[in-house]
Amino acid sequence: MGSLLLTGIGELVTNDPALGDGSTLGLLTDAALVSEGGRVAWVGPAAAAPTTDAVQDVGGRAVVPGFVDSHSHLVFAGERGPEFVARMAGESYAAGGIRSTVAATRSAPDELLTANVARLVAEMRRQGTTTVEIKSGYGLTTHDEARSLAIAGAFTDETTFLGAHVVPTEYADDPAGYVELVTGPMLDAAAVHARWIDVFCETGAFDADQARAILLAGQARGLRGRLHANQLGPGPGVRLACELGLVAVDHCTHLEDADVAALADSGTVATLLPGVEFSTRSPYPSGRRLIDAGVSVALASDCNPGSCYTSSIPLCIALAVREMGMTPAEALWSATLGGARALDRSDVGRLSPGSRADWAVLDAPSYVHLAYRPGVPLVVETSASLR
Amino acid sequence: MGSLLLTGIGELVTNDPALGDGSTLGLLTDAALVSEGGRVAWVGPAAAAPTTDAVQDVGGRAVVPGFVDSHSHLVFAGERGPEFVARMAGESYAAGGIRSTVAATRSAPDELLTANVARLVAEMRRQGTTTVEIKSGYGLTTHDEARSLAIAGAFTDETTFLGAHVVPTEYADDPAGYVELVTGPMLDAAAVHARWIDVFCETGAFDADQARAILLAGQARGLRGRLHANQLGPGPGVRLACELGLVAVDHCTHLEDADVAALADSGTVATLLPGVEFSTRSPYPSGRRLIDAGVSVALASDCNPGSCYTSSIPLCIALAVREMGMTPAEALWSATLGGARALDRSDVGRLSPGSRADWAVLDAPSYVHLAYRPGVPLVVETSASLR
Repeated sequence: MGSLLLTGIGELVTNDPALGDGSTLGLLTDAALVSEGGRVAWVGPAAAAPTTDAVQDVGGRAVVPGFVDSHSHLVFAGERGPEFVARMAGESYAAGGIRSTVAATRSAPDELLTANVARLVAEMRRQGTTTVEIKSGYGLTTHDEARSLAIAGAFTDETTFLGAHVVPTEYADDPAGYVELVTGPMLDAAAVHARWIDVFCETGAFDADQARAILLAGQARGLRGRLHANQLGPGPGVRLACELGLVAVDHCTHLEDADVAALADSGTVATLLPGVEFSTRSPYPSGRRLIDAGVSVALASDCNPGSCYTSSIPLCIALAVREMGMTPAEALWSATLGGARALDRSDVGRLSPGSRADWAVLDAPSYVHLAYRPGVPLVVETSASLR
Repeated sequence: MGSLLLTGIGELVTNDPALGDGSTLGLLTDAALVSEGGRVAWVGPAAAAPTTDAVQDVGGRAVVPGFVDSHSHLVFAGERGPEFVARMAGESYAAGGIRSTVAATRSAPDELLTANVARLVAEMRRQGTTTVEIKSGYGLTTHDEARSLAIAGAFTDETTFLGAHVVPTEYADDPAGYVELVTGPMLDAAAVHARWIDVFCETGAFDADQARAILLAGQARGLRGRLHANQLGPGPGVRLACELGLVAVDHCTHLEDADVAALADSGTVATLLPGVEFSTRSPYPSGRRLIDAGVSVALASDCNPGSCYTSSIPLCIALAVREMGMTPAEALWSATLGGARALDRSDVGRLSPGSRADWAVLDAPSYVHLAYRPGVPLVVETSASLR
């Protein structure tokens, strides 16, 4: 495969402020892009484009960096549609619902779990996602966590060990024993398949002391830490993430001023997951408040069968604008370069020389349409970088 | 084309309570459907299906009636993305924004307007819509309203003359003169292309007396009336629609108890357009309140470049469940048979013997996923009944 010129780009989002209009998004109009060997080799005005082996004209459409979805739970089996219906009829969301998926996942053969991940990853790609993080966390035995991560690893390098999702039923009377398992044999088995370690730090899941112990054990094995925190109510999770210098802390639905200050001081990325608030009918956090405080914000799907079964980053962008006080530009940045920062990746989330050639072509003249046209499948083509 | 057996249907929504489980949706599992000559000839258990000329197995997926989108404004030109960005930054929506689209539409050649409608209709079809109503209303001259309706008529039989969308700039000082035009020469030119007549009855557009005069003039020319009412605030529109016995009144965002009672008494369908509330950041009306009062509710997109540029009925269903207190079953019914009632059509919105063979196949085991998986393009195939 030689060099490809993508031209006729009505609006190109580079996410490089040194390019284009000088804004954070680094916008160019009437632009072109050259890719070679899976990397961006050149971007600039279409009229100044170099000669390449192949040319594709996108007819004035907008091109954006492929979305970087830094938070998903795709390795599972079972059906929780009826639980969703009950929740919409008034039942509240509780972390314990995870256990129904655990039972279905444990009893599913590898082939079924793999097929489910493949289907959801393909669905994500059709919607513009080119980098996806995938967590374990519905196995909760040493065997099932390791096989969940092995399956995830066939689709992405961004695999996260989430043995500490909830305490499984068989350890209900011995949560300390379960933490020993997670930090011991389960971690040993998971570490060879995972890049990250994560904990659901929340009432009904794991407290701050447990979360700290699990994260430190994972770090000692070479995994990097990230955290689910402050989803269902205020709590110590966000400050713990900042104290430990984690790259990202996710949910951040219920934040006190001290949490916001800690995020701003630490540089830890706050990953907002508005699909969860949508699908659990919960109040949305304010992205505006975080951005105004100088916090780096990422947007991700949290695609999972319980609290949020969307795989749509465009919907998350539209919700961030409608519900979280973010501008369309901020929402797009958060779903691309913000997601890249949440995964500590410098090669994705942008379209500038040296980055991966991961883009999405929109059937629209501007990225603004991602929020202006909610629910519409605007992505007409994604460069195929998800394995 | 002979008879086709659609089989392997994991869940079939017929909207015929005499079929299947006896619920309003008339649900069948492990079902099949036979179509012949564009009509449904048979539905029942897959095991009992008759022999047909061709067979298509949908592999356990859910099949629902194609969506009936009873409210859209697709004939226009121009770009209002920047207006959307400004609105999300705090500017409020006002009916006057329509005039910017009017200017662009008037200056657009037929070919451009036709291409725009074709693009949006194709987009709708990909998302499961098989019947669409299309209004004029961005021409506002006799010539431009007539050509808008002629263009719409190439795509649907459900064409609506909306010369009374707003008073155009050139009549700003003479609104009575504009009503004379709408009820006179413009109506003459439009009537040959339209099935319906509609008025935007709202502060900033047309008052109740004007709306009544326009609707009566249209009815005298053989058009049937429908109304935009109570979108931006309380007003007389809903009660006017009920008094005149209109088939449907649309928006119904701000309803007093007397409005709800009038709807229940008259049988006029209340068409809710939740994409508008989403895209104008307005409070949502309660579908629950209307259904509990015995009102027939339809859901439609209101796809238009100003207040709501979504074409996604699945998003409207998800919003109706999240924001309007409707169950997934009620939301699906409203987007199918409810829409059919709002267009006084008995041949669409259901899948039972004699109905049109208009269906959507979902990449999901149940229609519940339309709300459970917001933003995800779940429609994998639509029977091609939109022209």
